[in-house]
Amino acid sequence: MNGLVSLVGAGPGDPDLLTRKAARRLAEADLVLYDALVSADTLALASRAQRFYVGKRCRRHAMAQETIHRLMVRAARRGKRVVRLKGGDPFVFGRGGEEALALKAAGVPFEVVPGISSAVAAPALAGIPVTHRGLSSAFTVVSGHDEAAWRPVLEALPPGAVTLVVLMGLGNRARIAAALLTRGWVGRTPCAVLLAASTPQAFTWTGTLEELGRAELPEALSDAPGTLVVGEVVSVAARLAAAEEPSREPAVASGRGGSSRRFPWQP
Amino acid sequence: MNGLVSLVGAGPGDPDLLTRKAARRLAEADLVLYDALVSADTLALASRAQRFYVGKRCRRHAMAQETIHRLMVRAARRGKRVVRLKGGDPFVFGRGGEEALALKAAGVPFEVVPGISSAVAAPALAGIPVTHRGLSSAFTVVSGHDEAAWRPVLEALPPGAVTLVVLMGLGNRARIAAALLTRGWVGRTPCAVLLAASTPQAFTWTGTLEELGRAELPEALSDAPGTLVVGEVVSVAARLAAAEEPSREPAVASGRGGSSRRFPWQP
Repeated sequence: MNGLVSLVGAGPGDPDLLTRKAARRLAEADLVLYDALVSADTLALASRAQRFYVGKRCRRHAMAQETIHRLMVRAARRGKRVVRLKGGDPFVFGRGGEEALALKAAGVPFEVVPGISSAVAAPALAGIPVTHRGLSSAFTVVSGHDEAAWRPVLEALPPGAVTLVVLMGLGNRARIAAALLTRGWVGRTPCAVLLAASTPQAFTWTGTLEELGRAELPEALSDAPGTLVVGEVVSVAARLAAAEEPSREPAVASGRGGSSRRFPWQP
Repeated sequence: MNGLVSLVGAGPGDPDLLTRKAARRLAEADLVLYDALVSADTLALASRAQRFYVGKRCRRHAMAQETIHRLMVRAARRGKRVVRLKGGDPFVFGRGGEEALALKAAGVPFEVVPGISSAVAAPALAGIPVTHRGLSSAFTVVSGHDEAAWRPVLEALPPGAVTLVVLMGLGNRARIAAALLTRGWVGRTPCAVLLAASTPQAFTWTGTLEELGRAELPEALSDAPGTLVVGEVVSVAARLAAAEEPSREPAVASGRGGSSRRFPWQP
């Protein structure tokens, strides 16, 4: 009897934003191998599974990639239902492709269960549409973790041509902002930093590209996943928030330093 | 009593790829306003709701945007739970931002429920990771519907700098391919056309950028949603498919004209 490995996207954090298929695969799983950004509430859905943390966070590698491959293959060959659970979507900076190739090479049946990527959902939940008529008709998603990867992309993109979404770039936000300004992006371009999106701790900072590098973020969320958004679409969030107090100047357009808020229009 | 409008992403088509929150909002809804790409199986989850088709498909406008706004506002003011259901994610080319602004202006409570965008899921389900170590560390998503929107973006992107994903660009695929070749993209760049992703009719064409313009697609799927992918990551699908027959040259790398297939490795 052969098992099955499901490469499953856990979405941005809120278990309610899991897909129905992901929730079912978790409920049926014998073994769950999960990454750093997967929430406890999500894991709790795998009530009958053994669960192992195999994530990497910054420089702390919990487990080598090859070990993860070996664990998945061995369990599947024993007939286990394995869920490889990754924050967001498994194929957006998730090494899902590498794991799929390893499973294929081992002859182990597998499937991909896409998840909601923070690249779109974190902005959306903060009132920022990554595309918006008249403001942006395209968006580019890049990982901000490894400078050797993000720098060539940011240097290739013409300033302002697309909405820019940077995942895993919190720690490099000053360097990323500097690279964009050097590239010719306008200093007043609206920016957002979205922390712990879709969770009760969700926090939004908005300001300009000039201010992004020195954006002050809550100490308590220094380990939370973060998404950066650079582009005119960020101003939609200010319009949505400002509509309640029509006389107030939207914070993003004011240029008086960044502002942070929770969005009252989310019920 | 005030109602609530939920701007809900329906995902790529398979109701199993709805989020748990989206499924619950549908089950509770009094009124569902849905777009063209929402499947009947998904709508069936809204068992107690009135359901209206308000979509646009190509040149057939079912309903003016302002009429949609008015319907949502009126129903919510009468205390109804309204689901505005859009294919994919409401904020990825979905006019979700415009609808959010209209609801805010009317003082109607609303929320955003992100959905799985075909931009990531359609490639994933065909074995194509939009990012893959060594092949691509960024991806750009653009709508291929309106040439005035996609042409400036494609002309701004340096050839090969990112994986390119074009939504709603099937009808313009020859013009899009020509624009990329003129821009300097290499003719042998692997490409995929993904039709009806996540449904039983799912169909994948792979070939090169030179071949994309004359890709022959099944007549029966001429109305299905389609996603174009341009970039080296498309070759991962060939490696996943080829692994079963190691002696065969991967179709994408062969350059002998496009090939189409279903992916046997999806259980």
